[in-house]
Amino acid sequence: MRSFEVKNRTSTDEIKSLRLITAIKTPYLPDGRFDLEAYDALVNMQIENGADGVIVGGTTGEGQLMSWDEHIMLIGHTINCFGTSIKVIGNTGSNSTREAIHATEQGFAVGMHAALHINPYYGKTSLEGLISHFKCVLPMGPTIIYNVPSRTGQDIPPTVIHSLSSNPNLAGIKECMGHNRIQTYTQTNITTWSGNDDECHDSRWDHGATGVISVASNLVPGLMQELMFEGKNLSLNLKLLPLMKWLFCEPNPIGLNTALAQLGVVRPIFRLPYVPLPLEKRVEFVEIVKGIGRENFIGEKDVQVLDDDEFILVGRY
Amino acid sequence: MRSFEVKNRTSTDEIKSLRLITAIKTPYLPDGRFDLEAYDALVNMQIENGADGVIVGGTTGEGQLMSWDEHIMLIGHTINCFGTSIKVIGNTGSNSTREAIHATEQGFAVGMHAALHINPYYGKTSLEGLISHFKCVLPMGPTIIYNVPSRTGQDIPPTVIHSLSSNPNLAGIKECMGHNRIQTYTQTNITTWSGNDDECHDSRWDHGATGVISVASNLVPGLMQELMFEGKNLSLNLKLLPLMKWLFCEPNPIGLNTALAQLGVVRPIFRLPYVPLPLEKRVEFVEIVKGIGRENFIGEKDVQVLDDDEFILVGRY
Amino acid sequence: MRSFEVKNRTSTDEIKSLRLITAIKTPYLPDGRFDLEAYDALVNMQIENGADGVIVGGTTGEGQLMSWDEHIMLIGHTINCFGTSIKVIGNTGSNSTREAIHATEQGFAVGMHAALHINPYYGKTSLEGLISHFKCVLPMGPTIIYNVPSRTGQDIPPTVIHSLSSNPNLAGIKECMGHNRIQTYTQTNITTWSGNDDECHDSRWDHGATGVISVASNLVPGLMQELMFEGKNLSLNLKLLPLMKWLFCEPNPIGLNTALAQLGVVRPIFRLPYVPLPLEKRVEFVEIVKGIGRENFIGEKDVQVLDDDEFILVGRY
Amino acid sequence: MRSFEVKNRTSTDEIKSLRLITAIKTPYLPDGRFDLEAYDALVNMQIENGADGVIVGGTTGEGQLMSWDEHIMLIGHTINCFGTSIKVIGNTGSNSTREAIHATEQGFAVGMHAALHINPYYGKTSLEGLISHFKCVLPMGPTIIYNVPSRTGQDIPPTVIHSLSSNPNLAGIKECMGHNRIQTYTQTNITTWSGNDDECHDSRWDHGATGVISVASNLVPGLMQELMFEGKNLSLNLKLLPLMKWLFCEPNPIGLNTALAQLGVVRPIFRLPYVPLPLEKRVEFVEIVKGIGRENFIGEKDVQVLDDDEFILVGRY
Repeated sequence: MRSFEVKNRTSTDEIKSLRLITAIKTPYLPDGRFDLEAYDALVNMQIENGADGVIVGGTTGEGQLMSWDEHIMLIGHTINCFGTSIKVIGNTGSNSTREAIHATEQGFAVGMHAALHINPYYGKTSLEGLISHFKCVLPMGPTIIYNVPSRTGQDIPPTVIHSLSSNPNLAGIKECMGHNRIQTYTQTNITTWSGNDDECHDSRWDHGATGVISVASNLVPGLMQELMFEGKNLSLNLKLLPLMKWLFCEPNPIGLNTALAQLGVVRPIFRLPYVPLPLEKRVEFVEIVKGIGRENFIGEKDVQVLDDDEFILVGRY
Repeated sequence: MRSFEVKNRTSTDEIKSLRLITAIKTPYLPDGRFDLEAYDALVNMQIENGADGVIVGGTTGEGQLMSWDEHIMLIGHTINCFGTSIKVIGNTGSNSTREAIHATEQGFAVGMHAALHINPYYGKTSLEGLISHFKCVLPMGPTIIYNVPSRTGQDIPPTVIHSLSSNPNLAGIKECMGHNRIQTYTQTNITTWSGNDDECHDSRWDHGATGVISVASNLVPGLMQELMFEGKNLSLNLKLLPLMKWLFCEPNPIGLNTALAQLGVVRPIFRLPYVPLPLEKRVEFVEIVKGIGRENFIGEKDVQVLDDDEFILVGRY
Repeated sequence: MRSFEVKNRTSTDEIKSLRLITAIKTPYLPDGRFDLEAYDALVNMQIENGADGVIVGGTTGEGQLMSWDEHIMLIGHTINCFGTSIKVIGNTGSNSTREAIHATEQGFAVGMHAALHINPYYGKTSLEGLISHFKCVLPMGPTIIYNVPSRTGQDIPPTVIHSLSSNPNLAGIKECMGHNRIQTYTQTNITTWSGNDDECHDSRWDHGATGVISVASNLVPGLMQELMFEGKNLSLNLKLLPLMKWLFCEPNPIGLNTALAQLGVVRPIFRLPYVPLPLEKRVEFVEIVKGIGRENFIGEKDVQVLDDDEFILVGRY
Repeated sequence: MRSFEVKNRTSTDEIKSLRLITAIKTPYLPDGRFDLEAYDALVNMQIENGADGVIVGGTTGEGQLMSWDEHIMLIGHTINCFGTSIKVIGNTGSNSTREAIHATEQGFAVGMHAALHINPYYGKTSLEGLISHFKCVLPMGPTIIYNVPSRTGQDIPPTVIHSLSSNPNLAGIKECMGHNRIQTYTQTNITTWSGNDDECHDSRWDHGATGVISVASNLVPGLMQELMFEGKNLSLNLKLLPLMKWLFCEPNPIGLNTALAQLGVVRPIFRLPYVPLPLEKRVEFVEIVKGIGRENFIGEKDVQVLDDDEFILVGRY
């Protein structure tokens, strides 16, 4: 089902060169549908502040809470509106090989530049099964493989990556297992992005990572751009660490969702099972913003502490 | 769920000005999935030969045999690859208001320029129900309403159209009820396209129709362009009538599917319940092509009579 | 994907013997989901009043407004709760052969006793295509074919039925084309049910029809049972005709939905594109109930005229 | 969308009393669809050998590789054919609260006796989010909560369970965290099933577990019945341990799928990302069967070592 129209072609090398990729937040309307106006604004702020790519419907963007038609629609929308300004990487991975095949085929058909693929979480499989899974989707286009054992319950070991690395579509690895693992790859010329904001500075400048696939850049894209492009900067990294720690005090994107709502750039709406951070953490966020400087965060409204009853949680949508 | 990004905006007036809109064929791979390479080639031939618009997933394109995710994907794909060269009108209509709302919202989100909406076929409803149905989708963007009682079992009477015509998104009507009905609309400045190839010349030049939404233009886009743009041309119309009659000897797109396969531009694959025309009609088509001139048809291969066993019919896909 | 467990087996002959089959209404909650409590009550009243079978998700039950998972769930629910008391016939037909195959396979897997199959409406096909379509689903289990050209835009001619009639799964035809057509079938021992309430008495007693697949029996199951089982009864038929005419003053199930809401047995909720009958028809219904006798209608509340603002119309659900 | 028909009612206490619940395997046809004949045979062998319940579409049954309509259909099928002989527990859990709500509602509507609910794997959430998630589905019917951090990446701590335990629908916990955790629950009268075959004997007889939700019982239901019902039996447990260890040498259900194919009770078909165990493990299985006795395993064919090329792996289905 491949298309060879020019607009669909992005080379794997272009993907390999991206340094700041934002795992973009998906904002919602009160009935739980996507808030595309808010989404467009978020993407535009990423472009203006120097991000080179976005992951659409990653775990941060809550792809796991989307139906596949919503997910592919959002990829198609992003490509259509922003595809000439930023690289659009669709999270078309799944723990079901069938779904990964179907979604990846559709994602490339609507023009996404690359796919992000997770190993089969929850259901898991053998190493041989992992390889078979990735081999079903790699032929379709530029691909980033994502390793995050704290979510998947299963590490993708380097042997698996090495057995796939001769495929010209393998752009690289989003790796959450730390500097040593990253170095294992970068020493053998496998492009690697840090999947941990709090480690990305050191991974980038000391361990060969090309850049980061970031959550924090949803909030402070300009500073994250500086961190990834402008050379080693220990003081900036230090300045950002409290924000990064705060963001991950509960499973992501709980912190991010809370933060964006308090910055006034998205409506305070959560799709369950996500719920906002408690009041004391919401107060803490306002202090962190003040510490780093409101002007470094996206949006133009004052940051505020939202009350419990300002949040809307949706289960049916 | 609206987006106001510039790329999504096409004015209703731009849609009103289209004269040759092709209800584009959807070609298939042997397993029943879309053959996007063949599809891209078909759309490119439309662009090269002067069509101004395509209907994606119309009855001709077998939208009725698509899952909605396939359908929206094909709209997104078409916009992404060809949206700057041709207007892309998604057939996001349905006999279920829920589905029409959902699909239309998604279609506009992936960038389609306009929606085609049918009245609720099969299930049918009252005139008041018709109006409620269309009012649910009209606010979403430029809209063409499609009236084809021979398929839907229910005429959309002018009273319904007139009660909707003040909506600035109503681009016009695709009308299959003949010259008089068309004239009813064009006399009150409601843009109308003929939905019948064999009547479109007269509707266009004698009854005020703006143009045609055509099946035949899949085969002879250049001649149909001439018929709609270059002034009254009785001899060309007469020359094309045998082809048009042949195309509709069985319910569309049976004839079109058979023809395109014999022209060698699509694989001879049918999604059931469509089956190819019988041998004698396939022989007849080759004669018609010779009569009109192979060079006026799309594709570059010799036209051929396919054998029964060259066709593949797929029920599960 | 067939199962041979005993509970799934119902013989085609058992289906052939049914005389009063009700095309059961699907009632809704205010958010548009199914109201299963009201549904269960409706089915129980059918059983108590002598119906032999129900069509689940027919056009009356608004199968055209269901997602397939809703539809199959409702079939499974009906079988599970009522399958030992009444025959459950799932309307698993579609204008898409793929969908008809998938739904029919699932419907039989959850235990439905028979399938109702429509010819491909709206998209339509050739006679050869019709036969291919039905041949894909007939092997799955007992099947009733439904002919209603006023909805489908295409008559299923006797030649098609005769070419399928040797299949032992063909239980018979639900025929809306009148007495002569019915007689054509019954004279060749093809079981036929009238699809028109206002003709069913004469079809049953004068033209060989086995019975009726009825809309009116949703309201007056006991009287319809009498009409189909207790011998020719011109006076009863005459008494019911005004109700039958009223029910079809607008496309079914608009009248039925309005009637059941006014009888207090379902909430006054419509899935669009259906809207309630206007006030004067609602007043008329109350008069008709009085004429026939409230005690002959299902439910125990007084019949009432509902106000416009008591109805809820849902588009997203 | 609740139904109160008698057949749907199973008390939470009935669920609490189950001792041997088999997480039943889903067998496939060569095209990847369900093999219902093989499935029915597997369920019948469970009933004959004394299992009290089955989990339909658990991780063992590869619910994670099913579309929801397949999944609900299989639950409905199981209830319809076997619901009077064995308790049917549908794994209608999901990491998406929306999906869990929808599937659970549908599962109870088609008659399942209880739901199995997992915490949101992969996406994860906060403890407060966990509680909100479970509270959305608990009102629908008898519920077992499933804790398996090695798959989900997140432990459900006892505080979460205790905050839910006053809900009368909470039947109990399927717990994989070992004897101590089980004892924590059983000491406070929370019903608990071991989720680990190799620990279940000791959990049952020494730590208060009610029984097991078992993978091994797919193969040796009679012996597992003995282990759970007939009193402490160290020698039987010891005899079974090598089988249990073998079954989990790779992520479940890889071992089980391989074993059942070699016993000749299911076709050797794997939905990716699962692939068969390698040859040496397949040989090992035959030895294990001989050690325990072929007659204790389900099926009547000789156990055999399958060749690599006898397995079919399906990605699109």
